[in-house]
Amino acid sequence: VAVAARESQVCLGLDPDPGRLWPTAHEAVGGGPPEARAAHAVLTHCGALIDAAGPACVAVKPQVACFERLGAPGWSALEAVCEHARTAGLLVLADAKRGDIDVSAAAYGQAFFGGTETPWGHVRGLEADALTVNPLLGGDALAPLLAAARAGHGGLFVLVRTSNPGAADVQELPLVEGGDVAGRLAQLVGALGETGEYGIADVGAVVGATAPGALARLRDRMPHAPVLLPGVGAQGGRVEELAPAFAPGRAGGLVTASRSVARAHEAAGGDPAGAARAEAERLRAAAWRIS
Amino acid sequence: VAVAARESQVCLGLDPDPGRLWPTAHEAVGGGPPEARAAHAVLTHCGALIDAAGPACVAVKPQVACFERLGAPGWSALEAVCEHARTAGLLVLADAKRGDIDVSAAAYGQAFFGGTETPWGHVRGLEADALTVNPLLGGDALAPLLAAARAGHGGLFVLVRTSNPGAADVQELPLVEGGDVAGRLAQLVGALGETGEYGIADVGAVVGATAPGALARLRDRMPHAPVLLPGVGAQGGRVEELAPAFAPGRAGGLVTASRSVARAHEAAGGDPAGAARAEAERLRAAAWRIS
Repeated sequence: VAVAARESQVCLGLDPDPGRLWPTAHEAVGGGPPEARAAHAVLTHCGALIDAAGPACVAVKPQVACFERLGAPGWSALEAVCEHARTAGLLVLADAKRGDIDVSAAAYGQAFFGGTETPWGHVRGLEADALTVNPLLGGDALAPLLAAARAGHGGLFVLVRTSNPGAADVQELPLVEGGDVAGRLAQLVGALGETGEYGIADVGAVVGATAPGALARLRDRMPHAPVLLPGVGAQGGRVEELAPAFAPGRAGGLVTASRSVARAHEAAGGDPAGAARAEAERLRAAAWRIS
Repeated sequence: VAVAARESQVCLGLDPDPGRLWPTAHEAVGGGPPEARAAHAVLTHCGALIDAAGPACVAVKPQVACFERLGAPGWSALEAVCEHARTAGLLVLADAKRGDIDVSAAAYGQAFFGGTETPWGHVRGLEADALTVNPLLGGDALAPLLAAARAGHGGLFVLVRTSNPGAADVQELPLVEGGDVAGRLAQLVGALGETGEYGIADVGAVVGATAPGALARLRDRMPHAPVLLPGVGAQGGRVEELAPAFAPGRAGGLVTASRSVARAHEAAGGDPAGAARAEAERLRAAAWRIS
């Protein structure tokens, strides 16, 4: 629905590096310890990036690691960035790649979705629309995360075939039963998801845009899964090769781009906001065309 | 070294549930929003648990999910708990099961180990002695985490065979090359680790104490790896079956127990601190005997 309304399948990655923020982020940082100042600058940077590129996007994907390294102020900045994105009408996909067993998985579900009941009252969670999760621990470890996601009408994106060169180390190991580990993970995604009224399931897959061959091969094991496609741009993936992602419909694929948008001005020149807006719009049009 | 000095291979799991803290944690919580009060109580609880059971242990293992669900105050509490443990002479193994690619993995390395250089000064990391990591993304994704660990003279514990019933879903898939996924992960652990002067490598493995058969089978692929053994107690693992863990020496295995120590009083009666101390000491003696 959000995809159709915005005519966009672009997910804006937010991976703020304190050493490479937009110049505007350095203004009005204020005082306090380094982590508070850095977190403030990161928040300003992400807000400006959302304001610039957001209109061409359907969602943001904050990389949680980039906030976590700034400690408690970083976590507060993450909450504020998510709020800023929601206010701009964007979905929030928390890229945290979490995975743990039973009560610990449930605790991550509380952290990223609805929150925690305590004797001192309700503690809000991040209230994300979706979370990236790691399936190495098996189906029972994903269940509490999926329950938490569904309680907030959200979903999960399960790592199936990542965009890095070393992904093959484990994910492409050939299995006795036929296929490889990624194929088995795709099957798990297909089995876990419940398909809603728009033909799109609530459990999706992360499949690197750097491996378009794998994408075509995995699609039939998870016909209704939305696919999150990182690796376009800085990592070398090309949006034109991703047509199989959109098999179940235009919302079947979300193209994510982070550095190629945030640092578009380094290649294209011009001010950071204008260059980011132009690059996000270029991606939006390219993805919409093939879908 | 730490193991020998303390004659203990017990790692105290810290998985605080705001709804089941020791009664002392409810005193002096103070005011403020629910997340600040809950985080304060969690910190008090963990401090009391460390003071009670710590003398029988060599390390603490905070479950990061339990802190993260309390937002920024939770992260501050995690930092304070780690500091408390270090002051008590205990190693800190952050149980976060992180895994991500290139720059994101490096950002997690900054978060959990040495910290981050920013234009506003150095932001401290958690300065953990070790971190649990998820190897699904392959060797190149673990490299930045290992580099960060080594820079602080720390190490990693890689998930190889987890303690949950669903672990078999992915980890025990039989491979065409022979063995299963867990076997291949054990081989990765063996290859990544550098063995120090005490015959123990700086890359270890997480192998559930609920699967002692798998432990014996995996040991020869990673002869020098320290093995973190969750699942003793509440999850049904028995310390008496874990002898293969200690093949490379007494520091070759770390037995972790969380709920069975923190909630020992629920079964044994008595005050929580005394029951926790007794249960931790019982585990310490049992593990030392078989090693």
